[in-house]
Amino acid sequence: MENYEVLMQLAIIMMAAKLFGLIARKLRAPMVVGEIAAGLIIGPCLLGLVQPDEFLDRMAEIGVILIMFSAGLETNLKELKKSGFIAFVIACVGVFVPLIGGTVLYLCFHGFDGFGTDKFFTALFIGCIMTATSVGITVEALKEMDVLKGRVGQTILSAAIIDDIIGIVVLTFVLGFKDPNNRPAAVSLKVALFIGFSFVLGYAIYRVFRIVDERYPHTRRIPIIALSLCFVLAFVAEEYFGIADITGAYIAGIILCSVRDAAYIDRKISVNGYMFFAPIFFVGIGLKTTFKGLGGSMVLFALCFVAVAMLTKLIGCGLAAKCFRFRNIDCVKIGAGMMTRGEVALIITSKGLAMKILDPGYSTAVIMLIIVSSVVTPIMLKMLYSKSPDTSPEEAAEKAAES
Amino acid sequence: MENYEVLMQLAIIMMAAKLFGLIARKLRAPMVVGEIAAGLIIGPCLLGLVQPDEFLDRMAEIGVILIMFSAGLETNLKELKKSGFIAFVIACVGVFVPLIGGTVLYLCFHGFDGFGTDKFFTALFIGCIMTATSVGITVEALKEMDVLKGRVGQTILSAAIIDDIIGIVVLTFVLGFKDPNNRPAAVSLKVALFIGFSFVLGYAIYRVFRIVDERYPHTRRIPIIALSLCFVLAFVAEEYFGIADITGAYIAGIILCSVRDAAYIDRKISVNGYMFFAPIFFVGIGLKTTFKGLGGSMVLFALCFVAVAMLTKLIGCGLAAKCFRFRNIDCVKIGAGMMTRGEVALIITSKGLAMKILDPGYSTAVIMLIIVSSVVTPIMLKMLYSKSPDTSPEEAAEKAAES
Repeated sequence: MENYEVLMQLAIIMMAAKLFGLIARKLRAPMVVGEIAAGLIIGPCLLGLVQPDEFLDRMAEIGVILIMFSAGLETNLKELKKSGFIAFVIACVGVFVPLIGGTVLYLCFHGFDGFGTDKFFTALFIGCIMTATSVGITVEALKEMDVLKGRVGQTILSAAIIDDIIGIVVLTFVLGFKDPNNRPAAVSLKVALFIGFSFVLGYAIYRVFRIVDERYPHTRRIPIIALSLCFVLAFVAEEYFGIADITGAYIAGIILCSVRDAAYIDRKISVNGYMFFAPIFFVGIGLKTTFKGLGGSMVLFALCFVAVAMLTKLIGCGLAAKCFRFRNIDCVKIGAGMMTRGEVALIITSKGLAMKILDPGYSTAVIMLIIVSSVVTPIMLKMLYSKSPDTSPEEAAEKAAES
Repeated sequence: MENYEVLMQLAIIMMAAKLFGLIARKLRAPMVVGEIAAGLIIGPCLLGLVQPDEFLDRMAEIGVILIMFSAGLETNLKELKKSGFIAFVIACVGVFVPLIGGTVLYLCFHGFDGFGTDKFFTALFIGCIMTATSVGITVEALKEMDVLKGRVGQTILSAAIIDDIIGIVVLTFVLGFKDPNNRPAAVSLKVALFIGFSFVLGYAIYRVFRIVDERYPHTRRIPIIALSLCFVLAFVAEEYFGIADITGAYIAGIILCSVRDAAYIDRKISVNGYMFFAPIFFVGIGLKTTFKGLGGSMVLFALCFVAVAMLTKLIGCGLAAKCFRFRNIDCVKIGAGMMTRGEVALIITSKGLAMKILDPGYSTAVIMLIIVSSVVTPIMLKMLYSKSPDTSPEEAAEKAAES
């Protein structure tokens, strides 16, 4: 292919992604669903206008890194510390119940060969995909009803952010154990070393970066240096610690999230993300999806996968909330709010496909989960809130003052 | 190479480009010179940290397209119409004298085999490289002395923009003639068809785009649609009319330069440009430069190339200005201001390398031209202005009122 032919491919991808993304939003579905649909339509599945190739693959990889870096940058550490313990417990339960649920589900379908086998890791990986809540849809639904600032809304928001972090840690362990040469002790050591390395280097970077940032605020060099750091950390994580590059990118974001220009960096990264790289990633998932190997058992699995993923979050988070003396209906609200899945589930899935842990058929199940959860969650939330309006922040503050 | 290894390459390129770009600016040289130097240092020439490959090549191609699109977007058609005729004549002379000078220079070195031979086209191409003024350095020098708004400054600015357009047209013809299957009549027809096509399609796009722009101003879809159009026009130019993709991108920019959100689009495109793609292009030139085939005759050619490129602009534009009754010293100012070359010369050169019209050695001559012209021009301008300050805009207005 000539270099200039790439331009046409990019133009088709960008326009299709935007068009179907907007249609999806009109239909109140998440935009990524529209972008994946765009990939299905323009790709080998239907029109065959664009074929997946190595160049698009690499652009997509950069896209994932940008998304994870941006997610890290948007972390509000102070807010997290404040909402603290309750959200943390809810997030933990909301990670481990789906993790176990997904693992057991896969083993029910394919039998149990013992710990440490390939099949066991695939099962664990299926569990991992279920862990990360994508809070975007929930936030939008809560905002629409003007209850985001309520106690329930804030708890969901914080728990969703914390469950991303825990999910990434779990994923790191699972991917580490996958390598047959890795013994559990070695993996734990590597992860510990990487966390230590990130802390030390991260603190150093943070101090240096703050000086640069204060001397040259809002200059082009700020996002360029930040993004370079993100790329380096992603590379180092994968090359020297055997840890997923997306984890490195996410940590790079967290390292820089308290810098004064964090929002400025995030804006510049986002422009790159939404113009080119992120659409290429999501459209790329559609391009690579095939319905060939999709037999009856796979469809049955996908249905169970969706059900387990949603119920485990609903029940897990709901019960955890109950322990903190939320009202019953508020527990259901919290559980329902945590059900939505999105980008991170797709990113983990594509990682599994690239590492040949998963068969391509599984991405269909994940896409189904994203669609169903993002349709069901807002409807459930609306019903629950219309039945029982939220305690307002003022009331909550009064109660807190009383107790 | 694994996908994540690309990240490290990109990080090295981005950081080196920024670092050496800033050093170049400190030394009052253009930043692109620093970026090329970065490529020489990190590439096979010296450290060998990054090797040129197909992925970087394609990213660089996107970079060039973004630069040319952005240049088109920044065109101020109204201003051009106003400054009009004088600037147009100066620009024409400033294109054709260097074009002829470059052609004759090459033929002097390598002999004349007759029109239409490969050698003749290479000679013409050398002439083409000399045509486009890069006005950035001149503008900065004039701004520093606070004389940009004077009659001389405005004339230089307008002429430099017009000479880009004329240069692109000339390049289009030269590349069209290059193909042995193309007869002059066929090339002229193709170019005419493309210009007609651009006008008709361009006007339609412009009308539709204005409606979209007025309904959804400052939304993400605006730059995404604009960039997609740019990619499509670049592709169509090359695929169906045999015209360089950079011409298509430039025309796409001009089509959209009067849209209300043109500056908004340009900003978003620039973020993409300066973060990733443009540095990859300029660093890529350094990566691909080799000093292997650089014998004594090539060095002599490079020296003559620099001299001819600068003198033809100085004399050509100066004489043209003289025809419009500028004072002698103002004619020299205009000629000197038009001498600087930059990005466009590099872009044309890399096009010639890709089409195997030029040997890699010639890029060294072009890089030398950029460095020398950007050092000499500001010094000359300062000397000229200190000898004879500009007629101020008020004086010019008075004179105009008198006449």
